[in-house]
Amino acid sequence: MATVEIPLRPLTHASFAEFGDVIEADPRSLRFINNGNTQRFHDLARIDVSAENGHPLLNIFRARPLPQPLKIRMLERHPLGSQAFIPLNQQPFMIVVASAGDTITPDRIRAFLAHSGQGINYHRNTWHHPVIALDTETDFIVIDRGGAGKNCEEFTFSASINICINPTATTGGSTH
Amino acid sequence: MATVEIPLRPLTHASFAEFGDVIEADPRSLRFINNGNTQRFHDLARIDVSAENGHPLLNIFRARPLPQPLKIRMLERHPLGSQAFIPLNQQPFMIVVASAGDTITPDRIRAFLAHSGQGINYHRNTWHHPVIALDTETDFIVIDRGGAGKNCEEFTFSASINICINPTATTGGSTH
Repeated sequence: MATVEIPLRPLTHASFAEFGDVIEADPRSLRFINNGNTQRFHDLARIDVSAENGHPLLNIFRARPLPQPLKIRMLERHPLGSQAFIPLNQQPFMIVVASAGDTITPDRIRAFLAHSGQGINYHRNTWHHPVIALDTETDFIVIDRGGAGKNCEEFTFSASINICINPTATTGGSTH
Repeated sequence: MATVEIPLRPLTHASFAEFGDVIEADPRSLRFINNGNTQRFHDLARIDVSAENGHPLLNIFRARPLPQPLKIRMLERHPLGSQAFIPLNQQPFMIVVASAGDTITPDRIRAFLAHSGQGINYHRNTWHHPVIALDTETDFIVIDRGGAGKNCEEFTFSASINICINPTATTGGSTH
């Protein structure tokens, strides 16, 4: 069986820009409010949910950790809306995405490790793995789209390819 | 000087319904997704930000704790949009609101203590105190409205009234 190992990269604005927004207390977005008692980190994600009369939903996802090392069997995307995930325990979590296109080859998969204090917002139509909690059951605030229309597509990889995330690799993806 | 003590009440859906939504992992909103690995607590707040072509903003508020016992000098409201607050440290925080009307008398002020795991969403035009962190500097996810238009009004109480929150009182408000 062919094996593809995806290296795990640090989550940064630059590395994730193709797929979505990094939600964090970025000094570039800072404004002081409430007589200086509160720092407002302003407008951290493009909430893009209005297609086909959609509207924003605020939800909590309680995610059970997935077995590690993680094997990637499928990815999904939401053609009608962005989807933001912010963990409520401020702990690291894993993100697996793929670049745009109606089919996915394993070399287009990228994996990121969010550090404490980071969340993400998948742009509309970005291929991504269902939420990946690490170590412990984790509650995430999720902002996505409500409304009519088909807003979920799935892509399942061939069972003859073993795609896994290598948490120790730090460089570009490699195929063996 | 006249003193008004506002009792601190537990935050519940019923007690807060007049002012907004309680955001929590409420079993009544539960759906299982991702092959049963994730519990989705669905649609927990009415994000109401589209007035006058508004759109949702996602922000982080980093709030310094306010001196306790808290003295209430002013409240504010947002005529064009709801505003949600979810603490990222899952710790208790305090909420001070007042029932609707263009002016506020102290007997209409209510104070609530959110327990660990709760957030809130002020409905559009609900009078509320700026964010109140307890004990430690706290990051809140805030979802509010972006767009043109005057979206903040303030009401300042007379300096001759001393309005404070009594954290030990658990019954209705009283005036001394």
